[in-house]
Amino acid sequence: MFIPPKQAKQKPIITHTKQVAKTRIFEVEELDLEFSNGEKRTFERLVAGANGAVMIVAILDNEFLLLIREYSAGTHDYQLAFPKGLMESGETVEQAANRELMEEVGFGANKFTVMKQMTLAPGYLTHRMNLLFAESLYEEKRQGDEPEELEVVKWRLDELDKLIEQPDFTEARSVAALFLAQKIIQSKIK
Amino acid sequence: MFIPPKQAKQKPIITHTKQVAKTRIFEVEELDLEFSNGEKRTFERLVAGANGAVMIVAILDNEFLLLIREYSAGTHDYQLAFPKGLMESGETVEQAANRELMEEVGFGANKFTVMKQMTLAPGYLTHRMNLLFAESLYEEKRQGDEPEELEVVKWRLDELDKLIEQPDFTEARSVAALFLAQKIIQSKIK
Repeated sequence: MFIPPKQAKQKPIITHTKQVAKTRIFEVEELDLEFSNGEKRTFERLVAGANGAVMIVAILDNEFLLLIREYSAGTHDYQLAFPKGLMESGETVEQAANRELMEEVGFGANKFTVMKQMTLAPGYLTHRMNLLFAESLYEEKRQGDEPEELEVVKWRLDELDKLIEQPDFTEARSVAALFLAQKIIQSKIK
Repeated sequence: MFIPPKQAKQKPIITHTKQVAKTRIFEVEELDLEFSNGEKRTFERLVAGANGAVMIVAILDNEFLLLIREYSAGTHDYQLAFPKGLMESGETVEQAANRELMEEVGFGANKFTVMKQMTLAPGYLTHRMNLLFAESLYEEKRQGDEPEELEVVKWRLDELDKLIEQPDFTEARSVAALFLAQKIIQSKIK
């Protein structure tokens, strides 16, 4: 049951775009927009890399979810979150997810299920992230490019309510991922 | 039950910061970091405005959640999401939430409950968002600064499963908000 817009709205027309800033990792684009009602506005958005990103909810032994605790420069603290990362050129979603799992938590997975493609803040970020569920894990560690070893946290499936209450589990993407994985997780609990 | 880090990690030291870009709405900061193991890295992060932000899950007549469908420049499409916005200088979290509700969906609320402070992408954004639950609504419309009228969508509480499946309900913050509000919502359903 898709509830469509009351009146199918015409998207605004992008009449002009201009790069207004570029740093080592960020690119800001300015958009001149003309809305269907004639209103004109200039918006800015942050442009993500071309390859997209993945986040992985991985289940180990039908007993644990695998998380990492990592330094986050934006908030200057350590945050608990699901493994994630940017896709590399030429990788499929599953290949990127498997590589990130190996680099960040030291496991590969024989089975991936794509759960949803999420956006982050679609008003001003072009970023999209593929959310995957990973199961049938095997140990395999690959070297990532982290400045210090990531702490891998095994979280018991029967204590997921507690996970949401953790003061360092604040990332909207990870909270959303946990929500979207719940049905699959429930079906796995012995 | 807070599961603390295995070894309490020393946060990296920020040895130097520098503004590397500033546009009309974005500011990018470069951080020189020294990790506790001696590794040195230079990171960039996007700096949010000083006042923070709010997102509101509002329940109407114990029967509907109030959402908006709005043009999102980042993804250049219309997205379905909970009302939200930046706090203004001097506002409390509840005042900002009430103003945004009035501007975006045409209701005020007599009761707000702060559910969680979420981050968006703490690795490279300083942004934090206060998530509130709003109830005991009354009609009051205030003029916002939107380029076109927002479409208000009333979503039935007994069809929340369907909401997650909507192709235009992709925003991680909104998915997380729905998850975090579930317990309160369940207690309200007649």
